[in-house]
Amino acid sequence: MPKIDLSSVPARTGSTYPAPLDKAVEGRSSQRLGDAAGITQFGANLVTLAPGALSSLRHWHENQDEFVVVTAGTCTLVDDQGETELTPGDCAAFPAGDANGHHLINRGDTPASFVVIGTRTAAEVAHYSDLDMKVTIGDGTYRFTQGDGSPLIDPKLPKD
Amino acid sequence: MPKIDLSSVPARTGSTYPAPLDKAVEGRSSQRLGDAAGITQFGANLVTLAPGALSSLRHWHENQDEFVVVTAGTCTLVDDQGETELTPGDCAAFPAGDANGHHLINRGDTPASFVVIGTRTAAEVAHYSDLDMKVTIGDGTYRFTQGDGSPLIDPKLPKD
Repeated sequence: MPKIDLSSVPARTGSTYPAPLDKAVEGRSSQRLGDAAGITQFGANLVTLAPGALSSLRHWHENQDEFVVVTAGTCTLVDDQGETELTPGDCAAFPAGDANGHHLINRGDTPASFVVIGTRTAAEVAHYSDLDMKVTIGDGTYRFTQGDGSPLIDPKLPKD
Repeated sequence: MPKIDLSSVPARTGSTYPAPLDKAVEGRSSQRLGDAAGITQFGANLVTLAPGALSSLRHWHENQDEFVVVTAGTCTLVDDQGETELTPGDCAAFPAGDANGHHLINRGDTPASFVVIGTRTAAEVAHYSDLDMKVTIGDGTYRFTQGDGSPLIDPKLPKD
């Protein structure tokens, strides 16, 4: 059945971020729709943000394009230019290599959801905009370091 | 600006289908959102169907995954299993090589829209389910033939 039964796809919570940064994405859940439906060539996840929740720490990708379609509630897009509200049907795109860090915040009082499509690459590096951190992804592992590759020391959540 | 101004993206009509098959998709328009926003690694189009319009003739792809998110109205998904209604927020996926031909029809009386994401490949072959036809895509051209590769002779629109 090509139609995806959204209620049947497990909602994953938690984070790969080292503590205490993992607290940044409390209230976020993600459903791997593409995996559930048998597509493999790009990622397609339905992300739901409880009121107050963030999609991620603000970041950008070196190698992977991202595309977002909002499907419920209001997601506030935060990037280098400031804040922009996205409501159902609104779309946003984040080209690979564009160093305009971004994330979505649910500033409303009801859940907000969006579908995010991302390229699949064997390896990736993403950079964080509001703290001195990058992540190097490969072989299923996420290695968080300072921007120069040295170990993270006492990372702290950026102020919202 | 990562948010896409949908009103600024040209709406393309018309079809690559040979006449009279091109009449099958009258009432369909498509906006190339990904191109407009500078992403290149997959296609992301917003398709709007006037009442009665079809997304395409029913088909499946050999090599390209497809993923759909409905954003307005009601799209009736037609595939080998029959008909399934999709409303805003509903998603469907069509894995490459799955010979379950599909298309979307707007059987409602208001416009219906969906975002479709597709893999970009240098070449592709798609097969049509309701007539003896395939298309071979490459170098920017669309070559429509019978399923065995011989020329199309007097193609006729399949009955809805």
